[in-house]
Amino acid sequence: MNKFERAQELIKKLNVDGWLTISDEGSDVHSHFLLGVNAPSLNYIYIAANGDHRVLAVQMEAPMIERSLKNKGIKAKVDSFSSLKDLESKLTTFINKPRIALNFGENQFNEKSTYFADHLTVGNYFSIKHLAPNTEFISSAPIIYGLRSVKNQEELKDLRNVCKATLEILETLPDIVKKGMSENEVKAEIEYKYMKLGKPSFPAIVGTGAHSADPHHNTSNKKIDEGVLLIDTGLQIDQMCSDITWTVWVGKKPSDEFINAYSALYESKEIANEYFIDDSPANLPSLKCRAYLEEKGYDHEKLFFHGLGHSLGFEAHDIGPRVSWKVSKESKLRENMVYTNEPGLYWKGKWGVRLEDDIIIGKDKCEKVTYNHEDPIII
Amino acid sequence: MNKFERAQELIKKLNVDGWLTISDEGSDVHSHFLLGVNAPSLNYIYIAANGDHRVLAVQMEAPMIERSLKNKGIKAKVDSFSSLKDLESKLTTFINKPRIALNFGENQFNEKSTYFADHLTVGNYFSIKHLAPNTEFISSAPIIYGLRSVKNQEELKDLRNVCKATLEILETLPDIVKKGMSENEVKAEIEYKYMKLGKPSFPAIVGTGAHSADPHHNTSNKKIDEGVLLIDTGLQIDQMCSDITWTVWVGKKPSDEFINAYSALYESKEIANEYFIDDSPANLPSLKCRAYLEEKGYDHEKLFFHGLGHSLGFEAHDIGPRVSWKVSKESKLRENMVYTNEPGLYWKGKWGVRLEDDIIIGKDKCEKVTYNHEDPIII
Repeated sequence: MNKFERAQELIKKLNVDGWLTISDEGSDVHSHFLLGVNAPSLNYIYIAANGDHRVLAVQMEAPMIERSLKNKGIKAKVDSFSSLKDLESKLTTFINKPRIALNFGENQFNEKSTYFADHLTVGNYFSIKHLAPNTEFISSAPIIYGLRSVKNQEELKDLRNVCKATLEILETLPDIVKKGMSENEVKAEIEYKYMKLGKPSFPAIVGTGAHSADPHHNTSNKKIDEGVLLIDTGLQIDQMCSDITWTVWVGKKPSDEFINAYSALYESKEIANEYFIDDSPANLPSLKCRAYLEEKGYDHEKLFFHGLGHSLGFEAHDIGPRVSWKVSKESKLRENMVYTNEPGLYWKGKWGVRLEDDIIIGKDKCEKVTYNHEDPIII
Repeated sequence: MNKFERAQELIKKLNVDGWLTISDEGSDVHSHFLLGVNAPSLNYIYIAANGDHRVLAVQMEAPMIERSLKNKGIKAKVDSFSSLKDLESKLTTFINKPRIALNFGENQFNEKSTYFADHLTVGNYFSIKHLAPNTEFISSAPIIYGLRSVKNQEELKDLRNVCKATLEILETLPDIVKKGMSENEVKAEIEYKYMKLGKPSFPAIVGTGAHSADPHHNTSNKKIDEGVLLIDTGLQIDQMCSDITWTVWVGKKPSDEFINAYSALYESKEIANEYFIDDSPANLPSLKCRAYLEEKGYDHEKLFFHGLGHSLGFEAHDIGPRVSWKVSKESKLRENMVYTNEPGLYWKGKWGVRLEDDIIIGKDKCEKVTYNHEDPIII
């Protein structure tokens, strides 16, 4: 089944007439996800319960969208608009239906939040409501969750492929990294290799010394110094992303503190892996990981101040239950969801370590599609 | 004045208590614009008319945000939240005010649309309204327009700098491009050079042959063939982007059709430049450009199916009046706005040419900060 057909099943189940995605300047990733091509200008994608699918795009993007859908065997009428008036009148022909799903989330401050579906912007929402005053608009969250949380075999094959390619590039790090290079230069070398295969799935984080203590450090012109070097990076080929963090030591002999933190994290990650299985509560891998770190003498509440991981797929941060010790045990993991497992320990203003791997949740055990070295790489 | 101070002036003028930006997974570019650092997780930035500025961020990003603001001399209280409940209660302490501006646009289907301010997502909007039921929320469009449409001297200096650096890289194209390389390989070579200085301002479009007829072609693994090669690319250093398109010929002798289209576009672009001046109606550069193309025998309505250019700045598509022959003459260009000037001619399924340069609007004439070669480069 192609994506439109899979969506159509979920649309019928939600009992709506159709699902409308509105994207402008890439504001909704589902445009790229559904069309199979990045059409950055304003576009409207309407997948209909009855199969009468429509795409409205600007003139300069309509032909490439049409070709992309055709290549994927998707039947949809692609039309273009030449002015705002034209757009308005063409939209009106298919959005006046009893019930349409739109990409908005609900309950931002609640654990049952559907924030993952929250892409539609306020101006577009009220403009559409104004155009179709009698239509009931509901959240498309169940459709998006159904399409993206559990991966199919083709997606898992792509995931294994992209993870393998990323690891082959990371294994060349000892040839790439030299003391005195800037973080940006290391990033450029890694991403240059990615770009021949696909593209970075997000801007690589390269943090030397104290920069490694900021989990979302913005890679800078600082020169690589002796000591800790954290590299968090991923590749996207076609529809799947990898996301891996390796923390290495630059210089002769790693400090004992570093070796100990690295080993504790390595073990805690392996322990967490045991709970990335079907029907496991989403807080369990994290609780087990943190219990081990505590046992090893680390104040995890203070030193490990982010979730254990996140869903991985078409986006580096994909859709699925949050994996954190703070979520409810009612939230469950499912077979063939894909997650990162990335415990970290950070000493503010000093240094940090994070080890991140990607796994596929299995019936009884997870499949490890990436690895970290058991002993830290010394460069 | 730093950005918070400039924003504060505009906030007072709009007669609101403050301006709230809500960004999650980079959904609102104003988070990066205001903080000076890319904080991809959920964050709230409240700039207050009375100077009591607040930032709420996740624990793992708060320290780097604090440092970035300090480096820029911005005084704001940066706090972090450890749970959704904590976030809710901390937000409540400062958003219960009579009138707050939020980043949403209005009138999507109208020429007076403020679509450029439309970043806030629907779920976040209703969640905030729910938290502050007595607050009147209005669009921040006038603040955003005031901050970003007309550039200040520091921004113009950065623009000249980034444009110069981009041109130096584009001048190496004859050394980079070889017949038989893939489009992705050419992109990788260009962006590798960018990444040592900054980052690509958008993914480069490299289109060989028929791909050059799609203005927003997704760079692919197709091998560079003899004939037309279109390269649309830009660099971002700090706060400013460049955006340049060069169309070159690969092979021995360019076809007459290509030479003629190239020359007509080159001239039409120079003619349009004369109308990129203060107080010029935003449709005028385009009308003059198209009149020249028509004179040269090109059916511009059919072959040139996009706007003449766009505002350029912190984003490759920045904020300012739309520049197109279809907009009203009441919409006016202003001194120190920055625009691309990028006429193109495209023969669907065959080939296309686009020449794109960046200009600063002046009192009596524009300043050309990039160039295209008068005669096409032959590689």
